[in-house]
Amino acid sequence: MPSERFRTIGVLGRVEKQAVIESVYVLITFLRERKARIILESDVAAVLKCTECEVRPMADIGGHCDLVIVVGGDGSLLAAARTLSKFDVPVLGINRGRLGFLTDVRPEDIEQQVGEVLNGKYLSDSRFLLEAEVERDGKVVASADALNDVVFKSGRSARMIEFELWVDGKFAYSQHSDGLIVSTPTGSTAYAMSGGGPIMYPNLDAMVLVPMFPHTLSSRPLVLDSRSELRLVVLDCHPQISCDGQVHMNLHPGDEIYINKKPHRLKLIHPMDHDFYATCRDKLGWGGRLAEE
Amino acid sequence: MPSERFRTIGVLGRVEKQAVIESVYVLITFLRERKARIILESDVAAVLKCTECEVRPMADIGGHCDLVIVVGGDGSLLAAARTLSKFDVPVLGINRGRLGFLTDVRPEDIEQQVGEVLNGKYLSDSRFLLEAEVERDGKVVASADALNDVVFKSGRSARMIEFELWVDGKFAYSQHSDGLIVSTPTGSTAYAMSGGGPIMYPNLDAMVLVPMFPHTLSSRPLVLDSRSELRLVVLDCHPQISCDGQVHMNLHPGDEIYINKKPHRLKLIHPMDHDFYATCRDKLGWGGRLAEE
Amino acid sequence: MPSERFRTIGVLGRVEKQAVIESVYVLITFLRERKARIILESDVAAVLKCTECEVRPMADIGGHCDLVIVVGGDGSLLAAARTLSKFDVPVLGINRGRLGFLTDVRPEDIEQQVGEVLNGKYLSDSRFLLEAEVERDGKVVASADALNDVVFKSGRSARMIEFELWVDGKFAYSQHSDGLIVSTPTGSTAYAMSGGGPIMYPNLDAMVLVPMFPHTLSSRPLVLDSRSELRLVVLDCHPQISCDGQVHMNLHPGDEIYINKKPHRLKLIHPMDHDFYATCRDKLGWGGRLAEE
Amino acid sequence: MPSERFRTIGVLGRVEKQAVIESVYVLITFLRERKARIILESDVAAVLKCTECEVRPMADIGGHCDLVIVVGGDGSLLAAARTLSKFDVPVLGINRGRLGFLTDVRPEDIEQQVGEVLNGKYLSDSRFLLEAEVERDGKVVASADALNDVVFKSGRSARMIEFELWVDGKFAYSQHSDGLIVSTPTGSTAYAMSGGGPIMYPNLDAMVLVPMFPHTLSSRPLVLDSRSELRLVVLDCHPQISCDGQVHMNLHPGDEIYINKKPHRLKLIHPMDHDFYATCRDKLGWGGRLAEE
Repeated sequence: MPSERFRTIGVLGRVEKQAVIESVYVLITFLRERKARIILESDVAAVLKCTECEVRPMADIGGHCDLVIVVGGDGSLLAAARTLSKFDVPVLGINRGRLGFLTDVRPEDIEQQVGEVLNGKYLSDSRFLLEAEVERDGKVVASADALNDVVFKSGRSARMIEFELWVDGKFAYSQHSDGLIVSTPTGSTAYAMSGGGPIMYPNLDAMVLVPMFPHTLSSRPLVLDSRSELRLVVLDCHPQISCDGQVHMNLHPGDEIYINKKPHRLKLIHPMDHDFYATCRDKLGWGGRLAEE
Repeated sequence: MPSERFRTIGVLGRVEKQAVIESVYVLITFLRERKARIILESDVAAVLKCTECEVRPMADIGGHCDLVIVVGGDGSLLAAARTLSKFDVPVLGINRGRLGFLTDVRPEDIEQQVGEVLNGKYLSDSRFLLEAEVERDGKVVASADALNDVVFKSGRSARMIEFELWVDGKFAYSQHSDGLIVSTPTGSTAYAMSGGGPIMYPNLDAMVLVPMFPHTLSSRPLVLDSRSELRLVVLDCHPQISCDGQVHMNLHPGDEIYINKKPHRLKLIHPMDHDFYATCRDKLGWGGRLAEE
Repeated sequence: MPSERFRTIGVLGRVEKQAVIESVYVLITFLRERKARIILESDVAAVLKCTECEVRPMADIGGHCDLVIVVGGDGSLLAAARTLSKFDVPVLGINRGRLGFLTDVRPEDIEQQVGEVLNGKYLSDSRFLLEAEVERDGKVVASADALNDVVFKSGRSARMIEFELWVDGKFAYSQHSDGLIVSTPTGSTAYAMSGGGPIMYPNLDAMVLVPMFPHTLSSRPLVLDSRSELRLVVLDCHPQISCDGQVHMNLHPGDEIYINKKPHRLKLIHPMDHDFYATCRDKLGWGGRLAEE
Repeated sequence: MPSERFRTIGVLGRVEKQAVIESVYVLITFLRERKARIILESDVAAVLKCTECEVRPMADIGGHCDLVIVVGGDGSLLAAARTLSKFDVPVLGINRGRLGFLTDVRPEDIEQQVGEVLNGKYLSDSRFLLEAEVERDGKVVASADALNDVVFKSGRSARMIEFELWVDGKFAYSQHSDGLIVSTPTGSTAYAMSGGGPIMYPNLDAMVLVPMFPHTLSSRPLVLDSRSELRLVVLDCHPQISCDGQVHMNLHPGDEIYINKKPHRLKLIHPMDHDFYATCRDKLGWGGRLAEE
């Protein structure tokens, strides 16, 4: 019998990969044994050709479940998170192969670890998202959300861009560079890290601004309170803005980008043995224990 | 007449420098005109040979004033801050020459800007401090405070050290390096910045751990909540620990260093035109405004 | 009378800028006084509306002069260098405003410093160039030269690329990143520096490979002998290749890029007071002299 | 029968480690089978209690052998190299465990790979060394050699040093920092790499100067021709100078350090499968092959 908490469970996945499909089968079989009510996301249902299953589209599934399980990898969870965060539904990630920073159930542990989650044994943390809005001639012409990062970057490979950064209404700096990464703690182990940004503990209420190939040597990553309101003004060139790696818009000089923390957060569920530092040791090669106690 | 708020004003300074002595004279003359009650720190009084002045030692002056003014530079304020933070007294810094990150009244602006502060026109922010305690064989053998940073570093120039980091009781990593800088936001524009750490906005409730010349390429600055409780375990070598650049102790293998946020904060007073980003532009060379609005 | 060496002098410049036109006038007037034979590049001649001047196109001017003077800035000299290096003609650069790394005659010093050069008082050094060739299905489909750098970079802003690097026929590494900068010493103070590359003394026979936002933390700039033969194999994505900031081609998976040192070098002429380190101190903010001797 | 080339073979090792002693036994047994004349370094002979062996001290052994084999690790080879480079004797390194950058015969491959070397099948390359001389009041008061690096560094943990750098008689910069690493290509994968220096291909005739925690953000690693003559002038503080991690001297303000390439080079012998890039992939985690050809 499922826990009181998690009776109806949504299942998502990047089902074009065979390994994902296999894990989805294992998961569904297990959930049925546990007598959970299952709702499949439409793409998953299409691949599984499940006629008797309850099916809902991505945009909608979060509102009808007590828990959503994403099978795939950090990328799959990232894509789902932006939609799911609008509902107050917790999300658990099952990884295809090795552990991820967001998806920390291994395929071989599905029954044991999902079982424990259903029994109410799990850790949870909540991650904030960023919202980016583009304003042109005084009107909002585009907006998008990001769990990892908003990247503001030269669209053409051989041109630097010029922009101004304003924080909470105060002018911070102008910069001539390839762009700027605005990252949450969740994104600090992704693209921002490649750009030399610091790693931020997941629960930190902060964001980091990482300059990309700045023209002057004095530019450094800048860590701000997550409630800071950012405004970028494009001065030169035609940069692009992307959220979590999805390109959203080509910008013009004069465009302004407003980046703010969203009011909704994503609630992430982890197995009891989840440990951010262990993931860093595994994925980043940080040193393990040397001392005996 | 002084403001209601700041009636009794303490004056500190690194009075071995002539420029500082001159600014102290200007300051005292001005405070007398304003009918403020002045308390001189003992060293200042000794140099000024002021017979009718009220005098108190450094350790004590904070408890008898409504405001303490430090004349000197960021280093002077840093040294005073660790003592003054124990009292709830606000501190204002007068710089000898160019602006500092902590001392932002210029000598030529003493009358105008200190005047405004006495009139109640000022900005204030509060900075947290770190406390480092060394434990050996289960006993605390040393402790010290830092407004900028606790630096844990090889005492002999040609040896790396080996240590473990634990955060909130969880093992984070072992590291083979020249040492580790644990910095507050206040210290993030000082030594931590030389080591590649990010700049943190002064009011951020976070600290950054910057590895010094780590043996592996995977080590990165790590930003944690300021309430995190750190424990460093010395595995090899005889490192030293220093707080704000003052060496406090030589350590042995097996020693443990506990680093925590102190309950008391330092209350810093700034003139109305104070702006952290302007200081970064001035001192770090960040780009000024390019666009016309 | 001009020196024996430099009788015929070519004049180039980015003549859309008024400041450049003014300096060109000053230069030509001075060269006429010195009785030099002057050849204007076509665009310069068009702007100057000089009817009696000798005129030659860019592609050709290098073959008819003993010295070419470029008025403009590092960018102008860079653009001209790729063409001029094919001839054995020395090149002198006049900067519009502040000093550059390549153009080190100030507008106000034209008469004095160009005069000294004509009198045979000058320094010279020679810079190597790189040649990049793109091979597709066994055929060379594009090639270009670079004095600063060959940049191999994601053409779309939100995608990393995957490629292999081979050096002198040996596999070096595969990389998942935003791209790779291959820079000469001349380019080491330009884009490669923004990417964290080291500065290389101009006469060094070496090139540096700077990974751009590499996915793994273990990637580092790699300095190789300038005679090394590089081969990049595109594995994934559609990167672009640019030489000195000019985009030359969109690549496909399977394309191979060969990067080699060119046999011809650019001969740069400098005033007698030219000093690479002084330029670094001026432009990069390196510390000046502190000690008295 | 040994090759014509390598008839007399010296054996060195850090014989305080059991694993090293075991490998030395395997090596000696093998060399005896091959009828090589063996000369043991005194410490090795003492541990082995070999009564019939030919024995020579470290300082001397290089002059009596055709080949010296060092058993231990990169550190052991480094220590031996400074002495051996004075003779023209080639050196082969046997690693205790995993591969090193200098020692690339694994214990289990001793017979096969040393056998091939004796048969004349091997690769060799030559590495330059640096010489550091300290001059005080016009007299040379200390000197030492380095295969990896000369490190000029604050001796006390909490103090920065101030110094000037001169290159080939020209003033380069003054710097306020924790120190400076001057590294050969051989050392570029050691301490210099921890400090953010680039990796240099072993055969490159260049050295890199890596600033340690520089006070200004504009300092960068600087790559110079290996023949450059460096002069460091101590302005403030009492730094130490070390060569390959051995502390050699405490310095005073006014001391001058001259760093030059030594005329002698170390000749390193490698097995035929030696590959610098493969070592980087193994030790640094660079990406392996992804493409199929």
